[in-house]
Amino acid sequence: MTKQVRAARTRQALIRSAAIVFEQHGYGQARLALISSGAGVSTGALHFHFENKAAVGQAVVAEASHALREVSGSIRRRTDTALQALVDTSHALVDLLGRDPVTRAGFRLSYDGDRGGEPGLPEQWRGCVGELLDEAAAGGTLAEGVSRTDATAATVAATTGFEVLGRYDPKWLSTRTLTGFWLLLLPRLADPETLPLLDPSGTAAATEAVAAGRAERESYGVGTAAPI
Amino acid sequence: MTKQVRAARTRQALIRSAAIVFEQHGYGQARLALISSGAGVSTGALHFHFENKAAVGQAVVAEASHALREVSGSIRRRTDTALQALVDTSHALVDLLGRDPVTRAGFRLSYDGDRGGEPGLPEQWRGCVGELLDEAAAGGTLAEGVSRTDATAATVAATTGFEVLGRYDPKWLSTRTLTGFWLLLLPRLADPETLPLLDPSGTAAATEAVAAGRAERESYGVGTAAPI
Repeated sequence: MTKQVRAARTRQALIRSAAIVFEQHGYGQARLALISSGAGVSTGALHFHFENKAAVGQAVVAEASHALREVSGSIRRRTDTALQALVDTSHALVDLLGRDPVTRAGFRLSYDGDRGGEPGLPEQWRGCVGELLDEAAAGGTLAEGVSRTDATAATVAATTGFEVLGRYDPKWLSTRTLTGFWLLLLPRLADPETLPLLDPSGTAAATEAVAAGRAERESYGVGTAAPI
Repeated sequence: MTKQVRAARTRQALIRSAAIVFEQHGYGQARLALISSGAGVSTGALHFHFENKAAVGQAVVAEASHALREVSGSIRRRTDTALQALVDTSHALVDLLGRDPVTRAGFRLSYDGDRGGEPGLPEQWRGCVGELLDEAAAGGTLAEGVSRTDATAATVAATTGFEVLGRYDPKWLSTRTLTGFWLLLLPRLADPETLPLLDPSGTAAATEAVAAGRAERESYGVGTAAPI
């Protein structure tokens, strides 16, 4: 294993450990010593990669942002209909929020009051939803008279709510709950010819995009204790 | 002013001050001395009313729960259609979340991870939405084939999302955003005869219920510094 690969693995392990510590203790009370020991490295190794806690927080958000971008890009390339890509991407996001502490922490750092409110990830997700609805409108598959602004806001607010409510009851972050949301909303969003072609529970593209992302992260040894 | 009235005012001032301190510092880092000084009283006066921080937190949740119950009851008594009562209550809730620190803190204490996840207020809101949809179904104003479980989940998740996203951008917690949500959803929820009778932006019942609640709280001197 080259020095560069070891360093990349340590950096990923620190990001993952930071996400878990932020989740357990809150960003304000998260201690750097706990983050480094969670990654199986010394605080010196942490400081080799990150200047301070803010830099660690930014790296968590950047990593979660990268994962969302990869997943949404992969789904878009594999899906013909923009509305199905929207449904699939939301399922992939909810799956990530349920399983991946880095995605969860990335979103929470964006809207937790004590972090000063950086809109990063929710705004990225809003942009993604808005683009897919624009594509659906351009392709003629969006129902007539639907406000894309309202549909974007409803989708982003509902997925955000599922994450927040899922903290005390995991059912909120389930495929079943999100499928119910699309069963309700899709008949308003899709034109009548497109609607029967859409799967509100998501297609294989969603699960495969998430699995591919996980494989990529694991190739860096994320979550394993890797000394620098 | 009798001793009882003074004590009630002090208790209300402490609850309000606690809500503000929880919001600014997070529950975990909130100090009792800051809560009492925010209410203009000594920490001794705080301990006369509350045993510890957990008791203050419970009082904040109970007060927010009371406000939601009062507002939803008042709207239900004044509104013929269950679906309009649902729209109006959601507008009243979003108004409370925007203006009232006690309501905001009450919800946040329920879903912030570091509090161990007490589902109190979101579950109360879910119960309220579910009951109104049941009433609409019984009254024949709910559209056929709509899952009340899905509609309840979508409504509770969206309003939760509006609150969380509203922390970095107040537009999320605006009447306009919530009206857009109902413009999108009501055609799925209401039977075709009822739909034209509904106002997605809320009726006067919503604003009047919130104003009445505020007047009631102000009669206790909430927010004024009242020594015990």
